[in-house]
Amino acid sequence: MEQAFVALKERLAQVEDLRAAADVLEWDQETYMPPGAGAARAAQIATVRRLAHERFTDEAVGALLEKLAPAVEDRDPLSFEASLVRVARRDYEQATKLSVDLVGALAEAVSLAKEAWKEAKETNAFPVFAPHLQRLVELNVEKAEALGYADRRYDALLDQYEPGLKTAEVERVFQDLAKKLVPIVHAVAAHEPPDDSFLHQPFSEEKQWAFGVSVIQDFGYDFERGRQDRSLHPFSTAFAISDVRITTRIKAEFLNTALFGTLHEAGHALYEQGIDPELERTPLADGTSLAMHESQSRLWEILVGRSRPFWQHYYPRLQATFPTQLSGVSLEAFYRAVNKVQPSLIRVEADGLTYNLHIMLRFDIEQALIEGRVGVNDLPDLWNETMHEYLGLRPATDTEGVLQDIHWSLGAFGYFPTYALGNLISAQLFEKIRADLPDLDQEISRGRFAPLLHWLRTHVHQYGRKLTATEILERTTGEGLTAEPWLAFVREKYGVSMSN
Amino acid sequence: MEQAFVALKERLAQVEDLRAAADVLEWDQETYMPPGAGAARAAQIATVRRLAHERFTDEAVGALLEKLAPAVEDRDPLSFEASLVRVARRDYEQATKLSVDLVGALAEAVSLAKEAWKEAKETNAFPVFAPHLQRLVELNVEKAEALGYADRRYDALLDQYEPGLKTAEVERVFQDLAKKLVPIVHAVAAHEPPDDSFLHQPFSEEKQWAFGVSVIQDFGYDFERGRQDRSLHPFSTAFAISDVRITTRIKAEFLNTALFGTLHEAGHALYEQGIDPELERTPLADGTSLAMHESQSRLWEILVGRSRPFWQHYYPRLQATFPTQLSGVSLEAFYRAVNKVQPSLIRVEADGLTYNLHIMLRFDIEQALIEGRVGVNDLPDLWNETMHEYLGLRPATDTEGVLQDIHWSLGAFGYFPTYALGNLISAQLFEKIRADLPDLDQEISRGRFAPLLHWLRTHVHQYGRKLTATEILERTTGEGLTAEPWLAFVREKYGVSMSN
Repeated sequence: MEQAFVALKERLAQVEDLRAAADVLEWDQETYMPPGAGAARAAQIATVRRLAHERFTDEAVGALLEKLAPAVEDRDPLSFEASLVRVARRDYEQATKLSVDLVGALAEAVSLAKEAWKEAKETNAFPVFAPHLQRLVELNVEKAEALGYADRRYDALLDQYEPGLKTAEVERVFQDLAKKLVPIVHAVAAHEPPDDSFLHQPFSEEKQWAFGVSVIQDFGYDFERGRQDRSLHPFSTAFAISDVRITTRIKAEFLNTALFGTLHEAGHALYEQGIDPELERTPLADGTSLAMHESQSRLWEILVGRSRPFWQHYYPRLQATFPTQLSGVSLEAFYRAVNKVQPSLIRVEADGLTYNLHIMLRFDIEQALIEGRVGVNDLPDLWNETMHEYLGLRPATDTEGVLQDIHWSLGAFGYFPTYALGNLISAQLFEKIRADLPDLDQEISRGRFAPLLHWLRTHVHQYGRKLTATEILERTTGEGLTAEPWLAFVREKYGVSMSN
Repeated sequence: MEQAFVALKERLAQVEDLRAAADVLEWDQETYMPPGAGAARAAQIATVRRLAHERFTDEAVGALLEKLAPAVEDRDPLSFEASLVRVARRDYEQATKLSVDLVGALAEAVSLAKEAWKEAKETNAFPVFAPHLQRLVELNVEKAEALGYADRRYDALLDQYEPGLKTAEVERVFQDLAKKLVPIVHAVAAHEPPDDSFLHQPFSEEKQWAFGVSVIQDFGYDFERGRQDRSLHPFSTAFAISDVRITTRIKAEFLNTALFGTLHEAGHALYEQGIDPELERTPLADGTSLAMHESQSRLWEILVGRSRPFWQHYYPRLQATFPTQLSGVSLEAFYRAVNKVQPSLIRVEADGLTYNLHIMLRFDIEQALIEGRVGVNDLPDLWNETMHEYLGLRPATDTEGVLQDIHWSLGAFGYFPTYALGNLISAQLFEKIRADLPDLDQEISRGRFAPLLHWLRTHVHQYGRKLTATEILERTTGEGLTAEPWLAFVREKYGVSMSN
């Protein structure tokens, strides 16, 4: 056992080193790489990722895992040994189920589909993208069949991002959510939206940057083990527990982009910085699922960063930073402006209330596609109909409709629902945190986040992938995934009574 | 042939991708990496480098090379195929001669020696470093024996950095150089050094940065395929022909550091940016030797960047950039200040005239060490004696003497001479360039460097490693390595007549 475990750990550490190297290459590509280096960098990333895959799927790894699986059976499932063998074995099974041919065909199809999608979006020409989407659906069906599933075909794809979560469960939660959320959105949309014109003014980029940094330092983001850079699209990435970086983008004339983007990415990064250092250089040193990851970013961005207590503390500081822009704006007016709700067509511009409806729309469509209930050519109409049903809007073009997101062109099916699930989980956790920390609002209104971060570290972050998202929810809240806490949160926030 | 060559190219491309990934990891470590990430990064670099080594030394590579060697024999030696097989074969033979045990022992000894060297230097305690240096000398002797040599043991080590160059040749050139240079240095040092106090004033770091960037853009450094960042020690690094980066450091109160450092690193980078794109992702896409690399940096830094024609063009611009600091300083006074000669104890602070003596001192000592003519414990006295002989100075401490450089603690023997050889080669090439481009000074005095860069690209850069340094010298100047052009250059520059 001991010797085999050491050998496994060393093997997996090398794979993690290679993955980290590829992540650094990608981070550099998004932040500092000179424009002419794209082709060379693509080759470098492909080589390093392929090697990481080869070394991980090596038969020797499989043999070690088979040998160790029975040996750790009687261990505490949360022990390092049992967790590593369990999670690595699951990854190994997934990774070895896909043939080299299928992986190659997917990569090629994605490469073509991305270009076609760009052209289709630019020229509002869905038929340009349709055959590529058709091919990617077929290949994803093949992939789902190769990965295997007990109940629904979409389960296999969802499972890549949300280990253990089932389509039926998501359906149950989303159907309940849609039924209750649509009337809330309609009720809120019936009122005149708050004035947020003062958020659209010139704001010094240096001051925007510095303000965001000062807030996430207060949150507990550790700049000794991370850094922030600028990029076109904000993201967070971890090369090690001791090196978790974020990026942001700044708009010179809109305050929200950098500010809430920074808080969002810091939420992701706090998760990874909080993983038990014992898990370094193992596949356990990662967020346990995309939804759990998103729950952390949404918790810090929305439940904390767009709350009244938060702005009670930070608004005077923000006003002092931007006196000419904000001197005439009251705390309440500012609070309402950064929480403005307005149904819109584009997901990435959606507010916190309507965002989940954008996601549910995509979930409905993509699982119907994968399970063969709709065809690619049905998509534009189906999209527009559902959009109207959920948000009362109808896109004038496919560019503003079914063509708006890059995800499907990347062959990513099963990814979208994790955004909405992240919102729901954030509210589930926050409800429990409020119960455990009765002074939470008061602490936040004083700019003190240590108790909140400590709770998250203790109950979520430290485990990395030792616990699944569902296990974390069950251990902390005593129940599985539910939309109720999130619905309660938005009802209260937007002053919509239960009868709505 | 065709199939085997394609297979070899693909193998080597993967190795280059891995090396580039390791180089990016190291670049990031020196520029942006958060301080807490050191341990994780060391592991990542070690894994990627080890894998690159493993994949390169794989028997399959050796078999392909053996198969291809006769097939390319009748090809033009400068053809892509013949060059790739020849150079890769040489690298392969070198890489497979060293046992895993020896490589491991060296890495371990270096890791210990570095720490001991730091402590010894800080506390002026040579005996702390001595046993580690002894061990590194022994291991390098073992390495030289494993690599093999025909004449001198030091040849094997020198050959790692200067393929094909022999110790006897360097000795011959250096002995001649020392004999002629020492009197020049004494003659120049007999005069009162020029006033350079105006170089030691506060200079805006942003303006220093911008000035350096504008000059290297004029040189032809391509920011579409490169970038400059700050680091503690300036360096250049290439991840691809399309991604060649430099770093600089800026002193707030000394103009020379960033200015000439930037020109120096840009010289290295222009070399790598000028390699024929056909050589991308092959081991041919690199400078052909350290001395040839250094010749390019010294050519742009010193022969161009510290010349009168250069400052005729740039000094008015520099004065306009720093009017309060430089308004009372004439062009001639500025020119003299940036070419000030003053014998000093520390190599990295040495001027362009005395620098070569610092190197010859190190060459004398390290080959005597490797060839067993002196012992480690003789070093402090030997150093101080030779220093006195060459530069008329005697270090008061070993910290300022034998302990000043990091190189030996890194196990690098055979590296030092390349610095001085770079100086000599730069002057050899420049003499030939002057003959080929009679208008060179006039062009430079107008800030026009295209003819110079074109000459270097045509005769040096494009070849990468297809030609050795000696071959380039012979093809361009018609002769091998000689110190005469450099001596003529410094005699003219410092107004020392031949009789000196």
